[in-house]
Amino acid sequence: MQEPVYIAGVGSCLPGTPVDSASLAKALGVDPDWVETYIGTRTRHFVRDPATGEARWSLADLCARAADRAMQDAGLEPSDVEFAVLATATPDALMPATVNQAAEQLGLNLLPTYQLQSGCAGAIQALDLAAGLLACGRHRVGLVLGGDVCAKHLDPFAAAAGGLGSLSPGELVSYLVFGDGAGAAVVTARPAGRAWALRRVLNRLTGAGREPGQTVEWYGAADRDRGPQAPRPVREDYKAIEQSVPAMAAEIVWELLDDLGWRAEDLDYVLPPQLSARMTPRVVEQLGVPAAAEVSCVADTGNTGNALPFLQLERLAGVIRPGQRALAVAVESSKWIKAGLALEAA
Amino acid sequence: MQEPVYIAGVGSCLPGTPVDSASLAKALGVDPDWVETYIGTRTRHFVRDPATGEARWSLADLCARAADRAMQDAGLEPSDVEFAVLATATPDALMPATVNQAAEQLGLNLLPTYQLQSGCAGAIQALDLAAGLLACGRHRVGLVLGGDVCAKHLDPFAAAAGGLGSLSPGELVSYLVFGDGAGAAVVTARPAGRAWALRRVLNRLTGAGREPGQTVEWYGAADRDRGPQAPRPVREDYKAIEQSVPAMAAEIVWELLDDLGWRAEDLDYVLPPQLSARMTPRVVEQLGVPAAAEVSCVADTGNTGNALPFLQLERLAGVIRPGQRALAVAVESSKWIKAGLALEAA
Repeated sequence: MQEPVYIAGVGSCLPGTPVDSASLAKALGVDPDWVETYIGTRTRHFVRDPATGEARWSLADLCARAADRAMQDAGLEPSDVEFAVLATATPDALMPATVNQAAEQLGLNLLPTYQLQSGCAGAIQALDLAAGLLACGRHRVGLVLGGDVCAKHLDPFAAAAGGLGSLSPGELVSYLVFGDGAGAAVVTARPAGRAWALRRVLNRLTGAGREPGQTVEWYGAADRDRGPQAPRPVREDYKAIEQSVPAMAAEIVWELLDDLGWRAEDLDYVLPPQLSARMTPRVVEQLGVPAAAEVSCVADTGNTGNALPFLQLERLAGVIRPGQRALAVAVESSKWIKAGLALEAA
Repeated sequence: MQEPVYIAGVGSCLPGTPVDSASLAKALGVDPDWVETYIGTRTRHFVRDPATGEARWSLADLCARAADRAMQDAGLEPSDVEFAVLATATPDALMPATVNQAAEQLGLNLLPTYQLQSGCAGAIQALDLAAGLLACGRHRVGLVLGGDVCAKHLDPFAAAAGGLGSLSPGELVSYLVFGDGAGAAVVTARPAGRAWALRRVLNRLTGAGREPGQTVEWYGAADRDRGPQAPRPVREDYKAIEQSVPAMAAEIVWELLDDLGWRAEDLDYVLPPQLSARMTPRVVEQLGVPAAAEVSCVADTGNTGNALPFLQLERLAGVIRPGQRALAVAVESSKWIKAGLALEAA
């Protein structure tokens, strides 16, 4: 990136009221102290109504609201937006792309849209892409979205009602760590709104020869009835994740600082990976940036996948002052993607 | 696009041996003459073995082979590739992204990868994105992939064995029009290999206020057991498609010609939308480019979704001569996306 591009505004949308760990632990038949000790996440939001099981929001709904807020934050209108990028692991459907359903709600039309299939690195991959499209002079204003909804795979209250005997410990953990949500940023080729300069974006697959740390399947009509023969829908290799993420996160920080010629003590804020409220502090410890204040949301929101960096950027907006610097770091464990960005407030 | 980028090589991969309409019609209990009259597609390829139902290739497998051929065609090596983009409606899994599984097979690592969730316009959206990433000076060589595998939704031989009474006429048509496959192109910032100059790429959502013409669902564990309550997996509004696609295709041609200052008679080849072997000639008739030779593959391959424009580009490579011009046109009926590209052979 020769010239910086700018983040003009940020916004988010979390569905419904927070679901606390006590009620979730009760539904799942898990000891609440165990949740507190090993997960640490206090609340998360779900599109499903715990009482009825009804999914009350689509991902497109959450994205459209987050985008509205980001545009308001930037002081820009939908008519200013020249392209849209959405990153998600869990689109509402395979087609139409969720970005286009969100565009419908936002009144966006006659523009290019892109939807990335991505995991925890997705928000930064989408910002990376948007930065490229702005830097090449094609566009002046872009809308970047990220979000996930786990309702199709993880329905803790229904799972609890149906008996949890078939769940592996890893699957049980997945019910406790994930939450639903969406976030958005408005990006611009020239300073506008908040005018945070995006100094660098890192986005690199590093997975060659490594087993995936996370797998999420989808089922089609032809394999719906395969029952137990079907692959496990959500598999997380939490051991590999715990082993690899802290070191990868530290490498991302070093690389961004080196590339920019920034010293660790020049850094005011760090937005670390948000796996769980217990895991994040262990990652932060190893980053080697003790002077930087941590900006995290996972204890309140759970792991919302592609929404996370946007939720953190929104929190950052509440504290960052002109001239201050921040790094965001994301690691995608599916196929081991390193992602990060460096920004400077105007 | 200020400066053109270049297509250096193209390649494709179609799984197994072609399945002819006679055997498919027999399995589905459909009159072969009806297939010939209303669909026209003669053969298609499936990753599933018709005899055993086993899926013998993943989309990643097909993409990796198509990419190998495109790199060979370009005279470039995997080590030359600086980024990869894959467009698909039907990824092997939600995570890891199929582009990263294909990268593994190709030995690509330490590079940014992007996977677009897209339909028939996807190949051109991916080329659009790649052109942007090359034009901004970030990269010199990119690999662009597109493909679809319908095995998870459409298993005609199993459906036939299980009784077809529950299929709507639209679903029956879907069994007959779609096929599996992948295609690839190597794109470069400077002329290399075939050195086709990509003069213009059009990629525009035009779906505001219009019902989707195509919907493809995915199922998760939590909704696998909803049975008949679950939404229909693949819904095509063939009437809306027949009404809208010819006019949209013609508009795409006019816009590309106008933007470039090309006259219809300057055009040597046209690569039209490939819905079915019966539909494509009706589209071509309305394009207003009678002097341009049609480059189509649908009668042999079926509608392979995100692979199609690459399959057509591969056929174009067999006939185009230096200085000749071609337009490719794609319409995505899910949420009505107009897409097209204009190229000129070196």
